[in-house]
Amino acid sequence: MNELDLNLAKLASNTIRVLSAEGVQKANSGHPGMPMGMADCAFVLWNQFLKFNPSQPDWSNRDRFVLSPGHGSMLMYSLLHLYGYDISIDDLKNFRQLGSKTAGHPEYGEVKGIETTTGPLGQGFVNGIGMAIGAKMTAARFNTEEHKIFGTHKVYAICSDGDLMEGLSSEAASLAGHLKLNNLIYLYDDNNITIEGSTDLAFTESIEKRFDAFNWETKVIDGHDYTAINNAIEEAKTNQTKPILIICKTTIGKGSPNKKNTSGVHGSPLGLDELKLTKENLGFPTDKEFYVPEEVSAETKKSVEKKIKEFEVWNILFEEWKSKNSELAKEYEKFVSGVIPENLEEELLSVLPDSVKATRALSGMVMQKIAELIPGFVGGSADLKPSTNTYLDAYESIQSDSFGGRNFHYGIREHAMGSINNGLALYSSFIPFGATFMVFADYMRPAVRLAALMKLKQIFIFTHDSVFVGEDGPTHQPVEHLASLRIIPNLLVLRPADGIETALCWSMAIRNENGPSTLLLTRQGVKPIVRENEFSNSDVAKGGYLIRKEKADAAKVAILASGSEVNTALDAQEILEAKGISTRVISVPCKEFFDKQSDEYKRGLIPVSVERTAVVEAGISFGWERYFDIPQVRVTIDEYGASGPYEELAEKYCLTGEKVAEKIISSL
Amino acid sequence: MNELDLNLAKLASNTIRVLSAEGVQKANSGHPGMPMGMADCAFVLWNQFLKFNPSQPDWSNRDRFVLSPGHGSMLMYSLLHLYGYDISIDDLKNFRQLGSKTAGHPEYGEVKGIETTTGPLGQGFVNGIGMAIGAKMTAARFNTEEHKIFGTHKVYAICSDGDLMEGLSSEAASLAGHLKLNNLIYLYDDNNITIEGSTDLAFTESIEKRFDAFNWETKVIDGHDYTAINNAIEEAKTNQTKPILIICKTTIGKGSPNKKNTSGVHGSPLGLDELKLTKENLGFPTDKEFYVPEEVSAETKKSVEKKIKEFEVWNILFEEWKSKNSELAKEYEKFVSGVIPENLEEELLSVLPDSVKATRALSGMVMQKIAELIPGFVGGSADLKPSTNTYLDAYESIQSDSFGGRNFHYGIREHAMGSINNGLALYSSFIPFGATFMVFADYMRPAVRLAALMKLKQIFIFTHDSVFVGEDGPTHQPVEHLASLRIIPNLLVLRPADGIETALCWSMAIRNENGPSTLLLTRQGVKPIVRENEFSNSDVAKGGYLIRKEKADAAKVAILASGSEVNTALDAQEILEAKGISTRVISVPCKEFFDKQSDEYKRGLIPVSVERTAVVEAGISFGWERYFDIPQVRVTIDEYGASGPYEELAEKYCLTGEKVAEKIISSL
Repeated sequence: MNELDLNLAKLASNTIRVLSAEGVQKANSGHPGMPMGMADCAFVLWNQFLKFNPSQPDWSNRDRFVLSPGHGSMLMYSLLHLYGYDISIDDLKNFRQLGSKTAGHPEYGEVKGIETTTGPLGQGFVNGIGMAIGAKMTAARFNTEEHKIFGTHKVYAICSDGDLMEGLSSEAASLAGHLKLNNLIYLYDDNNITIEGSTDLAFTESIEKRFDAFNWETKVIDGHDYTAINNAIEEAKTNQTKPILIICKTTIGKGSPNKKNTSGVHGSPLGLDELKLTKENLGFPTDKEFYVPEEVSAETKKSVEKKIKEFEVWNILFEEWKSKNSELAKEYEKFVSGVIPENLEEELLSVLPDSVKATRALSGMVMQKIAELIPGFVGGSADLKPSTNTYLDAYESIQSDSFGGRNFHYGIREHAMGSINNGLALYSSFIPFGATFMVFADYMRPAVRLAALMKLKQIFIFTHDSVFVGEDGPTHQPVEHLASLRIIPNLLVLRPADGIETALCWSMAIRNENGPSTLLLTRQGVKPIVRENEFSNSDVAKGGYLIRKEKADAAKVAILASGSEVNTALDAQEILEAKGISTRVISVPCKEFFDKQSDEYKRGLIPVSVERTAVVEAGISFGWERYFDIPQVRVTIDEYGASGPYEELAEKYCLTGEKVAEKIISSL
Repeated sequence: MNELDLNLAKLASNTIRVLSAEGVQKANSGHPGMPMGMADCAFVLWNQFLKFNPSQPDWSNRDRFVLSPGHGSMLMYSLLHLYGYDISIDDLKNFRQLGSKTAGHPEYGEVKGIETTTGPLGQGFVNGIGMAIGAKMTAARFNTEEHKIFGTHKVYAICSDGDLMEGLSSEAASLAGHLKLNNLIYLYDDNNITIEGSTDLAFTESIEKRFDAFNWETKVIDGHDYTAINNAIEEAKTNQTKPILIICKTTIGKGSPNKKNTSGVHGSPLGLDELKLTKENLGFPTDKEFYVPEEVSAETKKSVEKKIKEFEVWNILFEEWKSKNSELAKEYEKFVSGVIPENLEEELLSVLPDSVKATRALSGMVMQKIAELIPGFVGGSADLKPSTNTYLDAYESIQSDSFGGRNFHYGIREHAMGSINNGLALYSSFIPFGATFMVFADYMRPAVRLAALMKLKQIFIFTHDSVFVGEDGPTHQPVEHLASLRIIPNLLVLRPADGIETALCWSMAIRNENGPSTLLLTRQGVKPIVRENEFSNSDVAKGGYLIRKEKADAAKVAILASGSEVNTALDAQEILEAKGISTRVISVPCKEFFDKQSDEYKRGLIPVSVERTAVVEAGISFGWERYFDIPQVRVTIDEYGASGPYEELAEKYCLTGEKVAEKIISSL
């Protein structure tokens, strides 16, 4: 890289400062303090070190850069503008306006160069760790003795006090240290200021000691000393053996003569007067807006040209690697294209046994086959491997000395699991899965939401999906969780009833390109269900389908159920039919897809003969109210569960065939 | 306390081991490993140190004991049985059976001596920190120079690998160190085993260093050496200046000759054969079940007698304190009785201004008055004091040298905030509140659920309650969160429309004795609403009420709305009425209460003349489907939001009076 020119560094950093303050001022909303405080570090990192090609922004071996405190988004946008990404001065002027690329927080997908959506604190910090793991795994799979060209980049992030206060980052930092991620270089903006005032109010721990405990290397520098920043990053990169945290002592709002080092500059515009004083203070013309000095443009252009040369060198090596390793190149192609076998459904159905098994166990069998077919399929559980049946038997565990495996040990860290997997999904063609008990979906909810917001292909496996957890009692029994997942936009919620649905729900998750999916699986065994002759695999993908017709012609009762309660509904059907009450059962493995079916399709399922519908589901009734315009019987659980054997809980909550039949009869 | 008799200690610990293993075996479900591993530490702590009176279990100055890894519940039940609490041998035999006190995990409220419900890892660890803070605050309020009798006890906990892996515990441990909680003594069961195998798989950080970074004192001991345990706790208690973590090196499942030190003993019964071998190994009769040797009963009885004497001494001092400090005693009585002024509603309404203000700002005014009236009202925010308007101006901040205040600085640690507040609510008569942006309710969801499960009086203040957050964009805009809170059993969800509703919703939260409440408050200003003459304060407590009637006699349209959208509905009403469409508006500040009203009441609100209902709410429609048997127009937001000024977002999402009126008209 270029020799660092200190005067130019100052001018360029101040350009970033002024652009950021102006963007916030024009929007009359936003956070100038962080961009102004970290402008020096950010400039040195981007100009001297960060490896990328703005015209090939998806270059697989680019360095990744994450701005974890997403509220400092103007820093990101200023950098993207200066370094040739698709952000114009007009975009900067449109900061935080409806429909602009320059949203309040950096939004993944809005513009290339933004590697992840940040804002909810801690998430970017952990996404970066997922990316670093992704790099290691890619390197382990595709590098050869001669060509070390995959995953040989670094993952850089800027992180903040808030990121480090959130427990999420502790979970993942511990894991990053455990895995000895020597491709992770984080700059901590240690400015001593939070919204409520000084960090002394609530945050007096030693970050150095904590990260040392996590097996990171730490180094403290003056975050406004260009040479110190440069040397620290240079040193960090050289023979790195651990993740590194560079603690940058900075002044929030640096450049603003009266507001620097105050909590006031954190989240409010400087005001026009102070903006003018800031420009004067930094030697910038006060009559110009969004001004980029020519020397700065020239320097960033020169920097980008060098970066592009590096890219071109890599590209030549890549072509060389391809020609010398044709088998590996085919594997690579298969991995990055993410191609899904056409006969996936058949393949998955082929592994099913014909016996009573929990859907978590059936899922475990199906997953072995998926791993065989889809090279990007990797994941693990939050220390519940034996209970969630999620270990991929043919593959190794991922550890600091074996990134060629496919099985993660996340530890008892659900939130980090979700957020690391978001990083993996963002990194490249990995389809990560993460498993825990369904009740602990709550622990990782912010990561689930971000996966859904970014439409990432991550799969959440939540087993022990109802009060039928049994003896563990209410702390471990999901009740409201089915609804709580169904309400998350872009999240596909799949709750299979038996082996066939488990296999087909897995195929729906694998084929889902519109966001994450979740599989909800039983602890207890379920009977394999014999289906109608007309059944076709695509029925399940409709989200709701007729799983067993009435015996006589016109059904009087239609029972809707999901998961293990489909068998309960079928038991009830048998009793009702025996009493001459013509009944059909509709299995609803995916309410989102079912809701999207045409009225005609739904009317086919609930014909005019039906006088009573029933919903049978071991979860709260919220969201099922008056489904269809027909009086409804609800056998649901609108309270917390209890500790006891699951068969007794079924009696208690009326979730047996007999009780359901009774309730329906008494309603007629 | 008694001199520690090593032989007796061994016999008693082994009794705990065997009882625990037998309980799990009989239930054929549960976790024997932890109770067997920690039996020695637990015995020494309970027998030699823990201060309590089983016949006065609510003694305010008892030591608190928390079993954070709640899966080891048989340890808790064995101890409660041995030390005179209301757990019989039959209860031990009924472990994990429906309706028994000895649930799968310790459930608060099932039996005295269980200070909090544990199981979801990390929570007990943090609840204990809340209790320790509660003790400090009580001490600061009521102790005198002469009488130091309040909050002068310790908070002990056993914690596990899982507790320390969860980020939640890091958040709170940092705060505990910051606050120098010198009444916190935690025993860490460092057994190197998790469900997936050795902790080496994912957990190789240095706990000693981490807790040192958090400003805790740490000490490593052999968790099976009675003298070491005794000395460590004794030392810890003496001139304690910081929270202390005693790292107890233990063998999971100790006593079981073949299963000790394996992950197999963590969560499964030993099996009858191994149970027999264990009894033999420990010198216990194999022909007896749930056997407590007489020497052990005698020792625990003796220990309890000494504890009771300590209680009696305290009681004398308490009476002395009362007689010498009559004013303070009155304050104390007011505090512990939690009495609520009869005219609370009037008092709260009296502080309201008559201008456009955000409900978060109105709430801030109301809260000042509550603090004046209710001495137990304490809390703060996760570093969002200025945005959530939650600072109690007349009171100081809580810091390590000032526990007399009422304002917490939790830092950017939402989850710890919720869980610490659970500990505070459990401790005594505190009514803690915790505030953050509504979208970050996700970060603390497990703590919200436990508050609801335990029916604790905690108040969650979630501001910035819709897409009208505006420029911050989708990461900061709640959409699914209103529904996600409404589905939690026992949680009262309150979303006021203006000042009057804000004051009255606060009174509902303060009067709610059935669990936690949450107030959802706007970022943007709302107009004060002029109400009908017939309006009475109790209307709001019905959850839904007619806020403005139609002008003509028979309403054709009824609009239901909550929060800031009530004003939108009123705007729409005006437009519709001007076009001759008779319309009424129903404000629904609390859907839970509204749903509980009689059909007659609801029919009064939606008379037969109504042809169309409309739901206007800036959140997802889930849960509002076909409310009432009348065709419905829904103006809701079933997707993620966007970054932009909130007025433009109102247009985008049709949440203006004009757009709502249009939608209704086009549906007619």
